[in-house]
Amino acid sequence: MPITNETHDPKLRSWVESANGGSTDFPIQNLPFAVFRRQGSNQAWRGGVAIGAHIVDMAAAVAAGVFEGAALAPAHAATESTLNHLMRLGQPASAALRLALSRVLRTGAAQQAALQACLVPQAEAEYAVPAHIGDYTDFYTSIHHATNIGKQFRPDSPLLPNYQWVPIGYHGRSSSIGVSGQAFHRPHGQVMAPSAAAPTLQPCARLDIELEMGVFIGAPNALGEPVGMTQAPDHIFGLVLFNDWSARDIQGWEYQPLGPFLSKNFASTISPWIVTWEALAPFRTAFAHPAGDPQPLPYLNHPDNAAEGALNIELQALIQTPAMRQAGTAPARLCQTNYRHAYWTAAQMVAHHTVGGCNLQAGDLLGTGTLSGPTLDSACALIELTEGGKRPVQLPGGEQRTWLQDGDTVVLRGWCEKAGAARIGFGECVGTVLPAKSALHID
Amino acid sequence: MPITNETHDPKLRSWVESANGGSTDFPIQNLPFAVFRRQGSNQAWRGGVAIGAHIVDMAAAVAAGVFEGAALAPAHAATESTLNHLMRLGQPASAALRLALSRVLRTGAAQQAALQACLVPQAEAEYAVPAHIGDYTDFYTSIHHATNIGKQFRPDSPLLPNYQWVPIGYHGRSSSIGVSGQAFHRPHGQVMAPSAAAPTLQPCARLDIELEMGVFIGAPNALGEPVGMTQAPDHIFGLVLFNDWSARDIQGWEYQPLGPFLSKNFASTISPWIVTWEALAPFRTAFAHPAGDPQPLPYLNHPDNAAEGALNIELQALIQTPAMRQAGTAPARLCQTNYRHAYWTAAQMVAHHTVGGCNLQAGDLLGTGTLSGPTLDSACALIELTEGGKRPVQLPGGEQRTWLQDGDTVVLRGWCEKAGAARIGFGECVGTVLPAKSALHID
Repeated sequence: MPITNETHDPKLRSWVESANGGSTDFPIQNLPFAVFRRQGSNQAWRGGVAIGAHIVDMAAAVAAGVFEGAALAPAHAATESTLNHLMRLGQPASAALRLALSRVLRTGAAQQAALQACLVPQAEAEYAVPAHIGDYTDFYTSIHHATNIGKQFRPDSPLLPNYQWVPIGYHGRSSSIGVSGQAFHRPHGQVMAPSAAAPTLQPCARLDIELEMGVFIGAPNALGEPVGMTQAPDHIFGLVLFNDWSARDIQGWEYQPLGPFLSKNFASTISPWIVTWEALAPFRTAFAHPAGDPQPLPYLNHPDNAAEGALNIELQALIQTPAMRQAGTAPARLCQTNYRHAYWTAAQMVAHHTVGGCNLQAGDLLGTGTLSGPTLDSACALIELTEGGKRPVQLPGGEQRTWLQDGDTVVLRGWCEKAGAARIGFGECVGTVLPAKSALHID
Repeated sequence: MPITNETHDPKLRSWVESANGGSTDFPIQNLPFAVFRRQGSNQAWRGGVAIGAHIVDMAAAVAAGVFEGAALAPAHAATESTLNHLMRLGQPASAALRLALSRVLRTGAAQQAALQACLVPQAEAEYAVPAHIGDYTDFYTSIHHATNIGKQFRPDSPLLPNYQWVPIGYHGRSSSIGVSGQAFHRPHGQVMAPSAAAPTLQPCARLDIELEMGVFIGAPNALGEPVGMTQAPDHIFGLVLFNDWSARDIQGWEYQPLGPFLSKNFASTISPWIVTWEALAPFRTAFAHPAGDPQPLPYLNHPDNAAEGALNIELQALIQTPAMRQAGTAPARLCQTNYRHAYWTAAQMVAHHTVGGCNLQAGDLLGTGTLSGPTLDSACALIELTEGGKRPVQLPGGEQRTWLQDGDTVVLRGWCEKAGAARIGFGECVGTVLPAKSALHID
């Protein structure tokens, strides 16, 4: 059912040995894109493609002359310091580049000698946000998250009447999106205590994660030109892991009537590697609203979406506290979920976003919203996992957490696996909470 | 009380005769910036400065060698195709450029001969959005608007408890912001009729305006570094007129719980000329919350804000229907208000936006929200003026309007005047509603 091509063949092996054997996120069937340079260097940022434990330096590979034909233009675009140009070329161009990469990285490829010199170990690389994100939109596609969090913010009406009809979304802040490795200061903000007469400005006391996926837009649409469901997937470049850090105490006080603002714009973290829409093809899966729920309106409905609109991506959030770090304890799992639980698909996000004529541009990022699944341990934010702070999460070494504490590091992981396909992964999305800055700096 | 300098002297006259006499928006005391080129040409977009009925072509003026010293770097920045670089240089740099412009444009200036050749008539120019707008935020600073519209969306709680404490704002869509002259198709969207069992996708039937001002950010702040009230004004480059077109029927159905989305992102229109923060200095005025209302929290409070935090800017929205255009009838006034009625000042918008560490970048746009004043005729959206569509507005020629109809053109105007200062204005912000596109284009 999913459209696949030779790049998905699970039998393919690479002459880059670390790409083989099934334990890497980055076998030759994946080939995700990032923007990188050597750690601590003043090198120019440039595009790279992951293969096993290495990165194909696209600037070096183009200079080595390993690309030709339809792959040449996208390969040149991939040498730039952001991937916007590559994204704007659209799926046929990035597919041509991906096919060329698959061929030159295969065992026995004639280009091995030339390309060997273009490999950089991932252990020696640092990453940048891979695109200039013109606009960032966050959706709310998990009905489980919407219901869980709605119970806490609006006990009387947890799931609002529009939820099953409208792929709810809102505009977010682009400037504060950072790449994995981001460390940010706990934000200050206005908080209103339940019985207080006035709010106070204070460091956030209910700092939370949101485990999401981010969808990068490729081919743009013009202002006033909606993208229908048939074309919607063609406008998607690829997906990343996305942690939409949230300040729940600030959010509760500020969010009505216009939505979250400062509670969400102090930092958001994405994983460096964009797994292309094409690489995910083998993991597309059937999509349907539960029996008894309304069918989507026609502009959000399409047989392809029903057949393969969802994505089977396994997702985890893990935490490592300072004490765990000190003791050498590995990050401990907070939750595990799957993107296929979402109530609205990536194609529906694109079709809905543009139905009024809004123009999406190459490099725009659409967050899925917190991808909580149907069970408590698949809830993807502490506000759900701890029932609003009432039931602490138990951690190794006897620690517990209701909300994030200073020094906590959160790791997101994601991967796809199924019989008959090579396992592919997203790498990691890592972020760390630093203590709040002194309020005295604000005058 | 307001800080003024020699550029504000009302006795100054320019050798550009159309700048003198008090009837222009652009006397030598104003000197606003835009990005322009000759109409219908393929010329490069470049910065320009309005003087009377003309534009100083900054690329030509720099080439003519009329700038020196501290004005040289900002003058060069003003030759670019967006003003982001000029904005990023901060207020001392743009003030140096403005002073130099004031001196070379004065009657008797030695540079008259050289500069005369650098003038382009405004009648022969077209304009671009003057900056790359990285992020756009819309605030909600009129308590009158918040109350009027709150009555219709939430009759039980029109003004929410947070309003008098929090400068409510939300993130908006940058990509669909256009410049005066913008024409846009009436958007389609999901609408839920009061008694219906299911929503329908249809062209917006309650299309509205919102008369706002837009604040362009100049000097940026780093992520994690709040800007206090003392410094906040130094981060403002200047102001424009702003029409935040709104689809009320779509908004009513979609906006809970995360705020407006498609109801606001199909088009937003700004005026081409950015009137600098410095040019507005003579019109700064005292600011206070009404007696009995809470005082702002310390991070939003400052003696300078109380003394001169508000801006005395007179604002109008006008409409010209197709029938009026046909009959040669000038645009008719819908409403008139003043920016000084806002409940939160521009400095408070900056201080609040950054208090959690959010980074503002040069060229970011902060909308004030609809600037409705205390009386019905100073309400700045049709939803208020018509009481939700119940009381049509009467227009010349016997027409009336509840909501905008296809072909309607809306014009925003703004100006500052007071005894002892030269009158300055913002020019116009014009936008026109085109018919909805056929829904058949959506598949």
